[in-house]
Amino acid sequence: MDLNNLHVLSASEAARLIREGVITSEQLVEACLARVRELDEQVQAWTFLDPDYALAQARALDQLRLEGKPIGPLHGVPIGVKDIFDTADMPTENGSVLHAGRTPSRDATAVAMLRAAGAVIMGKTVTTEFAYFAPGKTRNPHNPEHTPGGSSSGSAAAVATEMVPLALGSQTNGSTIRPAAFCGVLGFKPTHGLISRHGVLTLSRTLDHVGLFARTVEDIALLAEQLVGYDERDPDTRPRARIPFVEVAAREPPLPPMFAFVKTPHWERTDEATKEGFAELIEDLDKRVEEVELFPSASDAWEWHRTIMDAEMAANLAREYESGRDRLSEQLRALIERGREVRAVDYQRAIAQIRPIHESFLELFEQRYDAILTPAAAGAAPRGLASTGDPSFCTLWTLCGMPAISLPLLEAANGLPIGVQLVGPRAGDARLLRTARWLAARVAAS
Amino acid sequence: MDLNNLHVLSASEAARLIREGVITSEQLVEACLARVRELDEQVQAWTFLDPDYALAQARALDQLRLEGKPIGPLHGVPIGVKDIFDTADMPTENGSVLHAGRTPSRDATAVAMLRAAGAVIMGKTVTTEFAYFAPGKTRNPHNPEHTPGGSSSGSAAAVATEMVPLALGSQTNGSTIRPAAFCGVLGFKPTHGLISRHGVLTLSRTLDHVGLFARTVEDIALLAEQLVGYDERDPDTRPRARIPFVEVAAREPPLPPMFAFVKTPHWERTDEATKEGFAELIEDLDKRVEEVELFPSASDAWEWHRTIMDAEMAANLAREYESGRDRLSEQLRALIERGREVRAVDYQRAIAQIRPIHESFLELFEQRYDAILTPAAAGAAPRGLASTGDPSFCTLWTLCGMPAISLPLLEAANGLPIGVQLVGPRAGDARLLRTARWLAARVAAS
Repeated sequence: MDLNNLHVLSASEAARLIREGVITSEQLVEACLARVRELDEQVQAWTFLDPDYALAQARALDQLRLEGKPIGPLHGVPIGVKDIFDTADMPTENGSVLHAGRTPSRDATAVAMLRAAGAVIMGKTVTTEFAYFAPGKTRNPHNPEHTPGGSSSGSAAAVATEMVPLALGSQTNGSTIRPAAFCGVLGFKPTHGLISRHGVLTLSRTLDHVGLFARTVEDIALLAEQLVGYDERDPDTRPRARIPFVEVAAREPPLPPMFAFVKTPHWERTDEATKEGFAELIEDLDKRVEEVELFPSASDAWEWHRTIMDAEMAANLAREYESGRDRLSEQLRALIERGREVRAVDYQRAIAQIRPIHESFLELFEQRYDAILTPAAAGAAPRGLASTGDPSFCTLWTLCGMPAISLPLLEAANGLPIGVQLVGPRAGDARLLRTARWLAARVAAS
Repeated sequence: MDLNNLHVLSASEAARLIREGVITSEQLVEACLARVRELDEQVQAWTFLDPDYALAQARALDQLRLEGKPIGPLHGVPIGVKDIFDTADMPTENGSVLHAGRTPSRDATAVAMLRAAGAVIMGKTVTTEFAYFAPGKTRNPHNPEHTPGGSSSGSAAAVATEMVPLALGSQTNGSTIRPAAFCGVLGFKPTHGLISRHGVLTLSRTLDHVGLFARTVEDIALLAEQLVGYDERDPDTRPRARIPFVEVAAREPPLPPMFAFVKTPHWERTDEATKEGFAELIEDLDKRVEEVELFPSASDAWEWHRTIMDAEMAANLAREYESGRDRLSEQLRALIERGREVRAVDYQRAIAQIRPIHESFLELFEQRYDAILTPAAAGAAPRGLASTGDPSFCTLWTLCGMPAISLPLLEAANGLPIGVQLVGPRAGDARLLRTARWLAARVAAS
């Protein structure tokens, strides 16, 4: 075992080796910190990282293990946390100068659950301004002249560069799937309401989701399993039986999965590499994939999403707008100003569409398909750092609260990764991960 | 047993006598129909009542009992249903000419649950126009020149005149508590989300509640126990353990209850009889009651309620407004026109107030008090039929989704009843009924 290479381990491998006493958390965290020292000057994934404090957490966890105390499924494994999740021991600045110096006194529920599972909170990763469009400092790890995607830019880049095996992000439109695709890692947005958003910056109760980043499906499952749970402080979570993500994701599907290839009304925006990559993938899947037309009502989803996001962000960022609008980006100011003009009747009409649109998808899944197969983005990360790219390929699934995962299965001519997105029905998260593992293995074998 | 007087029986007594074979449902329904024939020409409580069909239901239920089939807790007991609850076997016209001739193909969940409990659906009771302010034809049973209150006018009047022992109504502002108070019966508005509103005219998801009418607390408990339950078609209901309303309501409180007398900012609207009645009640309760000032944030509740009700009714009645506004009452048209102008940010701000206001009440209940004691209305039913009276004494409790019950404990000089309202914390419904029974017994004994 080369202790200098521990950063390449998956979270599942690392947790196993720590549990078995083969490596210590301190060694793992030290190897990850070495990656940060080596790469972060260029990548700029972190907005807060205190190496001594990360090592102190690791040593404390190693000590617990030595004392024979119970250890959790992520014991000693470092994780990056997007800087919109409150942390009681680190600043949380939400990517805005208006929140500079903000130091919450409590952990977000998701962060508390990670600590309970034994994770080392490595540091806070860069977010765009208030998790909306105005970019942070992070660059694409594959080419610093390209965007890493957003808004969970730092989390995606940190996992891609093996600075951490896991990271938390969020998604209100395409903020997990898009940066995962652009950085070439896995991004998973579980069903709306599965993971508590208490203590996370609220943009939109209807659309906000916690997002997960990792480099293997197994790791996504391990992380998801720690985070799902009822939290009375998030009114969209519900009590439910434990979901055995790891066990289900590891299983072979009883039958080879069937995929519904959905182009969406935005297909013409995809670049050549994406079109070709999907054509090959579909040829390879052969009888296991069928192209499915979206039903007409779904084509208005982008408009409903915009109405809801504008109106809810305008409400949730009212204080920032009213007392600090001159220090908001132009894009965010414009969104809030649009949102302030939305009428309550139009907002309610948009909300009322979500359920029937999702019901129509349910029929699709019940009939025949295990997952929808669709691009994660219009192509690889575009050149330039002024924009984080186009979230259109995520909007519909985010609106419906359906689970979605981006897999880095394709590649552009310039070597940048291209994401393939799989989408399942609400609450079908574990099965979606099983299908994703099947597809990743199939592509790797071909 | 005088078969001509069976209409005076409470639902609990009647169900017991039917179960024991002392009387038949047909005899009971016949006695109730005789009351309708005798009184309804003046009272006008019903918008649909087919005596033959009511008797046919009763005979079918009697037959089931004779065959030894399982019988429900309301077996053979007739109930009136406000004409905004869908019934598969009777018209449901929502008090509007725009819905004249409407014949739903399915029962509302609450109606289906009543049938499952063995009830006879006697007929449909008069509602104001779309359960809002414009009066229906019903008159106050104590004096036909006075309003019965609204919007559940027919349900309150039918129970008051012993045409039925039980009735269903609804409340979005004061539509159960107010007519119960004006007609001198018990009206109970359970916690928001406890009883499904699926198949009931939707005015406002946030504010709509199913309401119950009876002449005894025991009957209110019996009816509530049949209706509480999770319904995935009402997104505000939740799975929960069965609530033993009848058992809890019948128990003696472990300690004599403590009451918080709350005047609300509208106290100066109360008439002399109400002021005097409350003064005597409070003197009688002595150390068991304390006057409590509302915390300042609660005083804006009326404004939040109005914003939510305007905006949600405008959304839910959009089709009626857009294609039939000339056949809406002026009041309803004005409300919808206000509602269409509400901005989404203001609507969301109003919604966001509900939780903190209710939390402040929770402290009150946890500290010291079993129930809030407050008027059900500003006084007895006002003279005239052009208005159904002022709902202000209900608004705050409806906004917060707190359980409330009106008890006919006071009387005006003209002999009209005056209601005393008790309010509990959300989910404290069964205990509130226990407290109500204690108070009713105490007043009866004094």
